[in-house]
Amino acid sequence: MDKTVEKWGMFEASFEGPKEGNPFLEVDFKAIFKHENSLIEINGFYDGDGIYKIRFMPDILGHWTFITKSNVQLLNGKTGDFECIKPSENNHGPVRVKDEFHFEYADGKPHYSFGTTCYAWIHQSMELQEKTLKTLKESPFNKLRMCVFPKHYDYNHNEPLLYPFEGSLDNGFDFTKFNTKFFSHLEKRILDLQILGIECDLILFHPYDRWGFSNMGAENDDRYLKYIVSRLSAFRNIWWALANEYDIFFDPITKIPTKSLDDWDRFFHIIQRNDPYKHLRSIHNCRKFYDHGKPWVTHCSIQRVDTFRTSENTDIWRELYKKPIVIDECAYEGNINHGWGNITGQEMTRRFWEGVVRGGYVGHGETYVHPYDILWWSHGGELHGTSPERIGFLRKIVEAAPGPINPISKLATEHYPYWDVTCGAVGEDYYLYYFGFYQPTFRTFNMPKDKKYKIDIIDTWNMTITELQGTYSGSFRIDMPGKQYIAVRMTRVD
Amino acid sequence: MDKTVEKWGMFEASFEGPKEGNPFLEVDFKAIFKHENSLIEINGFYDGDGIYKIRFMPDILGHWTFITKSNVQLLNGKTGDFECIKPSENNHGPVRVKDEFHFEYADGKPHYSFGTTCYAWIHQSMELQEKTLKTLKESPFNKLRMCVFPKHYDYNHNEPLLYPFEGSLDNGFDFTKFNTKFFSHLEKRILDLQILGIECDLILFHPYDRWGFSNMGAENDDRYLKYIVSRLSAFRNIWWALANEYDIFFDPITKIPTKSLDDWDRFFHIIQRNDPYKHLRSIHNCRKFYDHGKPWVTHCSIQRVDTFRTSENTDIWRELYKKPIVIDECAYEGNINHGWGNITGQEMTRRFWEGVVRGGYVGHGETYVHPYDILWWSHGGELHGTSPERIGFLRKIVEAAPGPINPISKLATEHYPYWDVTCGAVGEDYYLYYFGFYQPTFRTFNMPKDKKYKIDIIDTWNMTITELQGTYSGSFRIDMPGKQYIAVRMTRVD
Repeated sequence: MDKTVEKWGMFEASFEGPKEGNPFLEVDFKAIFKHENSLIEINGFYDGDGIYKIRFMPDILGHWTFITKSNVQLLNGKTGDFECIKPSENNHGPVRVKDEFHFEYADGKPHYSFGTTCYAWIHQSMELQEKTLKTLKESPFNKLRMCVFPKHYDYNHNEPLLYPFEGSLDNGFDFTKFNTKFFSHLEKRILDLQILGIECDLILFHPYDRWGFSNMGAENDDRYLKYIVSRLSAFRNIWWALANEYDIFFDPITKIPTKSLDDWDRFFHIIQRNDPYKHLRSIHNCRKFYDHGKPWVTHCSIQRVDTFRTSENTDIWRELYKKPIVIDECAYEGNINHGWGNITGQEMTRRFWEGVVRGGYVGHGETYVHPYDILWWSHGGELHGTSPERIGFLRKIVEAAPGPINPISKLATEHYPYWDVTCGAVGEDYYLYYFGFYQPTFRTFNMPKDKKYKIDIIDTWNMTITELQGTYSGSFRIDMPGKQYIAVRMTRVD
Repeated sequence: MDKTVEKWGMFEASFEGPKEGNPFLEVDFKAIFKHENSLIEINGFYDGDGIYKIRFMPDILGHWTFITKSNVQLLNGKTGDFECIKPSENNHGPVRVKDEFHFEYADGKPHYSFGTTCYAWIHQSMELQEKTLKTLKESPFNKLRMCVFPKHYDYNHNEPLLYPFEGSLDNGFDFTKFNTKFFSHLEKRILDLQILGIECDLILFHPYDRWGFSNMGAENDDRYLKYIVSRLSAFRNIWWALANEYDIFFDPITKIPTKSLDDWDRFFHIIQRNDPYKHLRSIHNCRKFYDHGKPWVTHCSIQRVDTFRTSENTDIWRELYKKPIVIDECAYEGNINHGWGNITGQEMTRRFWEGVVRGGYVGHGETYVHPYDILWWSHGGELHGTSPERIGFLRKIVEAAPGPINPISKLATEHYPYWDVTCGAVGEDYYLYYFGFYQPTFRTFNMPKDKKYKIDIIDTWNMTITELQGTYSGSFRIDMPGKQYIAVRMTRVD
């Protein structure tokens, strides 16, 4: 039992209890944590071998005590305490929604989400998992989409190292008995990401399945959710992604949908009830959006539904849902057979810029053919594409802005009379114009007459920033490179 | 007076009549043409200097006679005749709608429209006009969008050589008096195009104006329309384009719209009444489509209204209007300041392919900056871009198909389970798959088991066609180049 714990760190306490029967079903275990007059009830969980654990992420400095509650006498009324101390340098707390459309860490540091995707990386060889972490460390990404369950799909046919339930593919699984080794491994990986400053966007259900995990029945689904939320919510870098492609869960034989909208709503409620920290919650579509306007959805996790207009819809979706827009799948850079996995690095970079300048966040993924079918998108490993470096360049630009970028409504202001240019801004202090596939050799702008701006020409593909001489006000013309993928940044200097 | 005239050629007869007063207002002049039991009434027109003309495009071989009718005794009851003979080799007659979505010449030859745009070319120097014709001759284009009236707009500030009305910019124009020299010149250019096998998509009104021609009032508008239709409809290569950007005709001071939808409807009716040959009729939008479903519209002349989805909407518009789709402005290849005029040759070529494979027709234009502001889009001159050559390559592919290409509905057939690929076909004999910006290294297809196809891999950018060995049936996989802008052509061989 730790005696000091960082703010937004994890306090953990273990207790011995019964091994008999099925403790996952039979034993209730929780604790009340107390700081001065604040009380929080926290679920514990059974970790196998007669060990029961309670985890807690404190968010107030100072002295905390707790007392356990259980239907088993041995686990009831246990007490303890710890001291919550200041967070260490790289601990900014969990990510929350900020100003309707953006994110920040609990300590107030902005979180500009630059995510990538390795759906089944924790189900690959340990060597490959280590390689994935090494790649992530060098990458520009600060969020990772990944699945709890193993994946059965094109390019994904290997058996996982560990299953989340007891049993096997041949003999079936006992959905009432969690495989605690699996969860320990998952937790290790979440912590590995946390150390790298990467948010874990954890996908709780997905339809690509040969083991039965996508269709366990409501009772097992609900128990699984309560269990995983009880185990993981004290990890500050957890985001709950209810599903990948929630709308294509079908019985493989009857083709009848196996999860209804009511099921997904209920899952959200289970997470809300069992996660005292209110981590971010989202749900990702295939063909049709879930109604992201529902109050339990904290942000939109979007797969593009139009193959031509992808992140170009960011500002429309912002208006529609009034929540942060995270386009977790705008297609992947690569060259496989599927249209979702064979766009160029230039097109991926362009989609990032379109989304970011419109006040949203875009996710990366990579699917280049590989001699051993190791594709970053699902397996992790190494990155081969040309977009990550450019995404890193964009991330630096975004982080250097004076605040989160919001789109300029095409009708709202005389300073956005540009139907053909994507424009984001931070108040009147900062404007970012993105020209995408256009290649103008010059451009006229109409800025406020009473303010002065310095101007940078940004080549988003070649990653250069060229400052123009002088300062600019009112109407003026500037020369431009006559190339694609150029942005113009105007920063107020008066 | 000609004694023999080709079928779809032009018969012309001239008569002397009054010069006094204003013959444009005061003299009615027409003729009844007769072939066996067929009678057709044809408008004549005043050509200045006391000369009255009647033009007629016969569409039946054999002996024709005519008799004139006029409110002036001198011009009434004149008779004549001619022999309509077989058309010469390159005379296929006027273009008509064929099979709901396509075009053909009157002799049954398909017209696959590959248009370009030189709005104000007839208003430039004679030297430049000759250069334009020379360029067109070497180009792949078989339709030209061009305006009757001179153009006042960015990059368009020169005075024209001739005005369509008597008067001047300084002293104003008399809209009741046509400048017949202007019309003779226009006719010469229409004939020049005809000789090159180019349809003249003639724009009758446009809003870019400093002379007053866009706002002459209903009476003058209507007289102008009747006059120009009477003069020009015997040219077999005329298409009537009622307007460029019909929806942005505004009074420059009051900003009140100067032409209502009723006006545009009436203009269509005037053309219908006065053009006995029923040449193609369309109207081109800026921000908002005219209702192309109206019965007097023969085909949709479209400017894209979404900067990201342009010709990708072709199949949707086909379903909506059930008429041929001609995307006359999908943006122009170039590098000027405006977003409508600075896409790359690759993007232009991509838009052509997207539109054509979806069963439509796309128009070209070019706007590269030029030391003397000579931009193909408006002035003609020379082409500088990279798309025309590729458009020519596409045209050859389209002409080599066994018939007009129609899109394969994504839901209609088991042989189009490809949400991510644009596919057109000619029955089950021919399939054309276009991969656009995707770069797959391989692909699986599902074709009918009982039919055999040969397969060509077409690099639409590098203009190569590579036939795969053997023939293909049922489900199979093929390797692909892993590059953008690839098409796959399957041609039935059994």
